[in-house]
Amino acid sequence: MSNSQGHPILTDQQSAQRRTILPAWHWLRRYPREYLVGDVLAGFIVAVMLVPQGMAYALLAGLPPEVGLYASILPLIVYGLLGSSRTLAVGPVAIVSLLVATGIAPLAEVGSAAYLQLAIVLALLVGVIQLVMGLVRLGFLVNFLSHPVLAGFTSAAALVIGLSQIKHLLGIGMPRLEFFELLRYTTVHLTETNGTTLALGGGGVLILLYFKWGLGGQLKRWGVPPRWVLPITKSAPLVIVVLGTALVWGLQLDQRAGVAIVGDVPAGLPPLTLPTMNLGLWQQLLPTALVISFVGYMESIAVAKSLASKRRQKVGANQELLALGAANLGAMLTGGYPVTGGLSRSVVNYEAGANSGLASIITAVLIALTVIFLTPIFYFLPQAVLAAIVIVAVAGLVDVKTFRHVWQYNKADAASFVVTFLAVLAAGVENGILMGVGVAMLLFIWRSSRPHVAVVGRLGQSETYRNVRRHQVQCWPNVVAVRIDESLYFANSKFLEDTVLGLIADQPEVDHFVLIGTAVNFIDASALETLETLLQELKDAGVQLHLAAIKGPVLDRLRAIGFVDHLGEQFVHLTTHDAMCAIGVVSE
Amino acid sequence: MSNSQGHPILTDQQSAQRRTILPAWHWLRRYPREYLVGDVLAGFIVAVMLVPQGMAYALLAGLPPEVGLYASILPLIVYGLLGSSRTLAVGPVAIVSLLVATGIAPLAEVGSAAYLQLAIVLALLVGVIQLVMGLVRLGFLVNFLSHPVLAGFTSAAALVIGLSQIKHLLGIGMPRLEFFELLRYTTVHLTETNGTTLALGGGGVLILLYFKWGLGGQLKRWGVPPRWVLPITKSAPLVIVVLGTALVWGLQLDQRAGVAIVGDVPAGLPPLTLPTMNLGLWQQLLPTALVISFVGYMESIAVAKSLASKRRQKVGANQELLALGAANLGAMLTGGYPVTGGLSRSVVNYEAGANSGLASIITAVLIALTVIFLTPIFYFLPQAVLAAIVIVAVAGLVDVKTFRHVWQYNKADAASFVVTFLAVLAAGVENGILMGVGVAMLLFIWRSSRPHVAVVGRLGQSETYRNVRRHQVQCWPNVVAVRIDESLYFANSKFLEDTVLGLIADQPEVDHFVLIGTAVNFIDASALETLETLLQELKDAGVQLHLAAIKGPVLDRLRAIGFVDHLGEQFVHLTTHDAMCAIGVVSE
Repeated sequence: MSNSQGHPILTDQQSAQRRTILPAWHWLRRYPREYLVGDVLAGFIVAVMLVPQGMAYALLAGLPPEVGLYASILPLIVYGLLGSSRTLAVGPVAIVSLLVATGIAPLAEVGSAAYLQLAIVLALLVGVIQLVMGLVRLGFLVNFLSHPVLAGFTSAAALVIGLSQIKHLLGIGMPRLEFFELLRYTTVHLTETNGTTLALGGGGVLILLYFKWGLGGQLKRWGVPPRWVLPITKSAPLVIVVLGTALVWGLQLDQRAGVAIVGDVPAGLPPLTLPTMNLGLWQQLLPTALVISFVGYMESIAVAKSLASKRRQKVGANQELLALGAANLGAMLTGGYPVTGGLSRSVVNYEAGANSGLASIITAVLIALTVIFLTPIFYFLPQAVLAAIVIVAVAGLVDVKTFRHVWQYNKADAASFVVTFLAVLAAGVENGILMGVGVAMLLFIWRSSRPHVAVVGRLGQSETYRNVRRHQVQCWPNVVAVRIDESLYFANSKFLEDTVLGLIADQPEVDHFVLIGTAVNFIDASALETLETLLQELKDAGVQLHLAAIKGPVLDRLRAIGFVDHLGEQFVHLTTHDAMCAIGVVSE
Repeated sequence: MSNSQGHPILTDQQSAQRRTILPAWHWLRRYPREYLVGDVLAGFIVAVMLVPQGMAYALLAGLPPEVGLYASILPLIVYGLLGSSRTLAVGPVAIVSLLVATGIAPLAEVGSAAYLQLAIVLALLVGVIQLVMGLVRLGFLVNFLSHPVLAGFTSAAALVIGLSQIKHLLGIGMPRLEFFELLRYTTVHLTETNGTTLALGGGGVLILLYFKWGLGGQLKRWGVPPRWVLPITKSAPLVIVVLGTALVWGLQLDQRAGVAIVGDVPAGLPPLTLPTMNLGLWQQLLPTALVISFVGYMESIAVAKSLASKRRQKVGANQELLALGAANLGAMLTGGYPVTGGLSRSVVNYEAGANSGLASIITAVLIALTVIFLTPIFYFLPQAVLAAIVIVAVAGLVDVKTFRHVWQYNKADAASFVVTFLAVLAAGVENGILMGVGVAMLLFIWRSSRPHVAVVGRLGQSETYRNVRRHQVQCWPNVVAVRIDESLYFANSKFLEDTVLGLIADQPEVDHFVLIGTAVNFIDASALETLETLLQELKDAGVQLHLAAIKGPVLDRLRAIGFVDHLGEQFVHLTTHDAMCAIGVVSE
């Protein structure tokens, strides 16, 4: 079976992958030969991107460049075997690297052995958290991160990352500062810019942008076969690494012009590492680890789902947590730091034709060959080139489009975007996202605390009752019928009481009040208490309360707790029309 | 006009009181003579209760006893003039006193001048916060305190208060400790109990309980006129104060048996006081002040509303905030500490027949006379008697009944009760209530993150579509119609997507999916994003999405943002039946 786009759609056996903890078992056992070309090509292109990116992101995290490469070997193999996505490219990513840096920089000096140890502990904690979340099926927890909060967070984090790389691009030494202080510091010290460094970095940025936007079209016009376009355009980071290294080496720019270079990168496979057993330290790192686990998973699952749906494949939320958790434990064991699925490399992996986890494993093998044989050539690699790679990678994350869209649609969502964005810049990435989540929840509760309320009347001679403000309907002086368009719970129970009492105060001749529950999905204990109070208050005022069209499960509870007995069974009606018939203002 | 219980009901002019900031203007201008007896009697009885309670609560707050009396003069006059409730008795209350103690004890030594200064600053802050909340109409914010959270908080706070008084009752010196540590400390040091002190305190408790439960019935059997029963039973605290003082004085128990006494209480009206102008200090006290403002207002408005509704009167939420805020500023000016409306005294005030704010003013005058003339007699008052008053007052606050009720009704609400209760005991009163509020919100969001979903079919030949699991309905193999019983927003948008994709995966021959929006009160930006994704995913799978019975305001937004254009106007239907007709499985 295949759908209209020619991709095979899920058979029963394939969808069973969702129910196994080793999806690779299925595709390894009967690996279709036609998968191979796509997997090899995708594995190769991703490796070409990942070598410079891995080193660049490690530097962003305050770690030696080889750590980025170490984090791109075992974790990728583990994910390739366990992941339910066939195209997700796992490894170091910009935002997780930033979170690592902000989480551990206060606890150890950048570049020290203790700093590296902390990164390994973080990989352990993130791995354990994600595994546990996957095992106890807590994947749904990430739903608490709303889309505007995530977009606001990502946009601000991209700015923080971009600014953090400016020092490498300009060749200025800078202290660790908060965003706004760093911005001021940078403008004040602009004059100290190292021209040669800026030329290398700026040139790198221009080449990257040209490869990204201009080259593809040109290659097509030159008649280059389409299958070569992607490998060529995506080799941009490799191209500037080679060019930059050659220039520094050939012209001795490191000594003559003071260009900062990567320096010694140890050769050979990563060492086996184990985290420090220091519970106090683990506790200190826990908040950072939680944020990395959530944000990393959220970014990863979003990419994985969107790519999978294009081919009518499925990813399992909890299986993804298990796979990412195991990948992070792999990073912990091999001198790496926290990893997750990255947006840009996954898209490339997908477009290059990755068909299974084998692509990921091929990438890992190529990175392993790189750390064994190629590290000496990175000696003269200028740091400004790595900074250029990071800056161009994160520039696309500043999400003005989502903000505009959200602003147009809904001001409360736009507010949570803005609060998150500003909080990340002003209070740091971790506090910022927590504040964003808090604000999104408060806004949601605030919204449902003042629900839409419609007084309804009868439409013509029908059994339909509609809002008196929107329709020409029939009403009666002694009856008020009200539809509350929200579940009743603590945040709106006072509103309910005030609304009902206000309505009967405005209409003194009322002696029947009908509460219509078509949009009431539940009633919590606070609202139940309010209903009890209201029942008494209405009774004291000589007004009879009626309930109409209360949903089955809601009514079951009201019955079980005795509210219906207090009210009187005869005042509970299946529909608004039934209520009106019982009151006697209309005949059946 | 009067209602069935003989109380005058609100006339238009009276209800205008809700719209003035000086409600007293109305009742003072034309004070009905028949109000006077009730107001005088109620004012007198409340004063009799308030003198010992005020001193006892001040000790609970770690303050000298006269501060409790000072807080019972000007604040009561201010509230009497500004309050919209006619029966609320404002003054020192147990829970606010506990919050004051926990808030300022870490910052200054109990009994020091600095400690008293901090209490005055708290009164200022609480006053300003409540005034501002009233002016910008933020009264609705207290809705975020759900009923189970408040009940759990009150119950735990009552235990904390009760335990804190045990030292006075036993005559044991105790350090400041957290609840569980204090519990252990008390059991370990039980042997140090001062027998005489315990006899005085324990005797006081027994007398209070007898007055509370036994005496009323007995008085009636003795033929005491009903109007005298209340004044007599409510004088219990005064009785034990007089008895205890006489015993200590007559038998010299303070010197012979080491009974702790109140000692010197300065005579005369309170001094004029102004708070320290120290912004750093204000900032430190702000969280405590916020909690006191919220909790104090919440307790107060609940009592005021429940008493007002019994007489068909109204209280204005924002007017109450203004009145309480002004009362706290009054406390700040006259050497007092934060006040609010108390439950037990308000009920007594109501039952004794208070008709207007005059009752409150009479109470204040009597307390003023007490501090001018009667303070010398408090010298020999044993602290154990004051502790007995506090313990009996808070014992009724442990709310097992609400817990049982809530447990039976709804486990999520019961969970927020339990979490708040335990958090208050384990993490302190302030952290406890904040954790409770957080948990209540999370539980609410969690509940709405997995909404009830019903696949529906046609009921007979009607236009009604009902849950296939509950009714015998007609379905079609190529159509799935689903009603989601919740607004669509970030916390359930993934659930929506998974549910929809799961349903069409289970039924491969489906080519129309109808989403029914009768219970969808809004769709936020995250859910809109999910709908866009879903539309594409369904299209890729060859399934047409239909929307049916989407509410007007929700559809307006979907239209404005262009979603309806993406979907196609012809796939939006007024009702589920219209959708089925359009699909062609039923004829109109």
